[in-house]
Amino acid sequence: MSLLVVGSVAYDALESPYGKVECTLGGAATYFSVAAAFFTKVSLVAIVGDDFHPGDEAILRKRSIDIEGLERASGKCFFWAGRYSQNLNERVTLATELNVFADFKPRLPEKYRSSKYVFLANIAPDLQRDVLKQVKGKPKLAAMDTMNYWIERSNGDLRETLKHVDILMINDSETRELSNEHNLLRAAKQIFKMGPSTLVVKRGEYGAMMVDKHGVFCVPAFPLEEPHDPTGAGDSFAGGFMGYLAGAQSTSDAALRRAMVYGSVLGSFAVERFGLDRLLSLRKSEIQARARHFSKLTQFKL
Amino acid sequence: MSLLVVGSVAYDALESPYGKVECTLGGAATYFSVAAAFFTKVSLVAIVGDDFHPGDEAILRKRSIDIEGLERASGKCFFWAGRYSQNLNERVTLATELNVFADFKPRLPEKYRSSKYVFLANIAPDLQRDVLKQVKGKPKLAAMDTMNYWIERSNGDLRETLKHVDILMINDSETRELSNEHNLLRAAKQIFKMGPSTLVVKRGEYGAMMVDKHGVFCVPAFPLEEPHDPTGAGDSFAGGFMGYLAGAQSTSDAALRRAMVYGSVLGSFAVERFGLDRLLSLRKSEIQARARHFSKLTQFKL
Repeated sequence: MSLLVVGSVAYDALESPYGKVECTLGGAATYFSVAAAFFTKVSLVAIVGDDFHPGDEAILRKRSIDIEGLERASGKCFFWAGRYSQNLNERVTLATELNVFADFKPRLPEKYRSSKYVFLANIAPDLQRDVLKQVKGKPKLAAMDTMNYWIERSNGDLRETLKHVDILMINDSETRELSNEHNLLRAAKQIFKMGPSTLVVKRGEYGAMMVDKHGVFCVPAFPLEEPHDPTGAGDSFAGGFMGYLAGAQSTSDAALRRAMVYGSVLGSFAVERFGLDRLLSLRKSEIQARARHFSKLTQFKL
Repeated sequence: MSLLVVGSVAYDALESPYGKVECTLGGAATYFSVAAAFFTKVSLVAIVGDDFHPGDEAILRKRSIDIEGLERASGKCFFWAGRYSQNLNERVTLATELNVFADFKPRLPEKYRSSKYVFLANIAPDLQRDVLKQVKGKPKLAAMDTMNYWIERSNGDLRETLKHVDILMINDSETRELSNEHNLLRAAKQIFKMGPSTLVVKRGEYGAMMVDKHGVFCVPAFPLEEPHDPTGAGDSFAGGFMGYLAGAQSTSDAALRRAMVYGSVLGSFAVERFGLDRLLSLRKSEIQARARHFSKLTQFKL
């Protein structure tokens, strides 16, 4: 089942104690699409400038990612530069240049409009809503990300968009800021009143937590001895999560639990190397092996 | 199988947004013993002053806690006062009065000396070692806690004690400080060189992680909507963990995983109410029910 994603395709400059790159393919929708394409066909909606490199287009094309919805505009691609601290637990943004993204108005190709699984990566909430409106009927599953910037500056728009999604997938601090509750269970209750019926909290090195009507499900982060670059970990998580569900065509509790595991698997691979590198060399068999490793990491018998 | 514990029996003054108590029974060995006594017979080694209340002695006596090793000295009990922040995630120590604890020299009653399961709660590492020396032969399992204070001020003594234990059970920041490694897997490798073959990292609201030759096992913290008081959570975790193993007379991988779960169960109950209150009203059936709830929280099928 095809999975629609809207978000950023960007160039990143990254610095971590493990290296430095001046300009590498990045952006939430890129990480999401590459991760999700291991499980299902992805329909990408994004915008790039005329500096978008044919080699980077080929990276997307040779996977099961449909780029008919990748708009070309004159100008430069969205650009982000960031530096990570020694332990990768802190990040400084050095530059954010919206470029062609500043005037992005997502338009869905006709064939995308029947998508049943939709992911709205972190962009302005009114654009997220525009995308949902272009989808015919109600998707089987609509999920979204957001960030503190929109919680603070576009709260009304964000609240309006939240009414139309099933799953909100954000980090701890965003969860607390949006709900005005420190405790994540109480935060989930507040968020359920806003629209979503499922909250997925991404907690970085502590893993992820899902709260819905069935209760709570937790999955740890995969322990890595030497993570290299956290960029795109959350988007890769989202890609693994939504990709699995769309591929399995299920939103049962058991499928959602597996989606949490596959999200964590993809997130863990993403941080192993710089930028997209590890996801680009990844094989399906490695995903399955790591998913089994997640069982070993968490399973017990009473 | 009897479980030996040495540590503090104290009076605590506690303040949190949920209330305030001026003087309540506390101390690491108290929380540990009460938690462990749900699973096995506990032999307690500690010291109290002449202000130790008969009602508090009765609390220990009416459980399967042997207090022959509870020394009486003239003076006052160890006293600790602390205040928690609004979200319980920060703690200020308002007072630490060692009192009779300052001259504590643990002496094991003869019948304690054949203990096969030993827990050295957070006290000076030379005292921890003295206790181990009084145990006849090699225990089947010796575990210990410690804290930043000893890592910084008694590092040599601590290193000597570490050579003689199987399990080190500490929190994230202590793990990082002791090993001089931020990454917990690399930290575990450093700690294995010091003696222990198993590292259990207590991560508060993020749960706990065990690293040993079998690999890594993670258990989340039980999600609670309204925790009241984190005092004693780590010691209750240790009590549940060691109590389960001593009761089951096993140190197999499967038993250690269950011990992690029972540790988390006891830790989660400890924080539900002020001080020891919840552990004192707890029933064995509630422990089993919550352990099953931990399955629901973590289990998935690929």
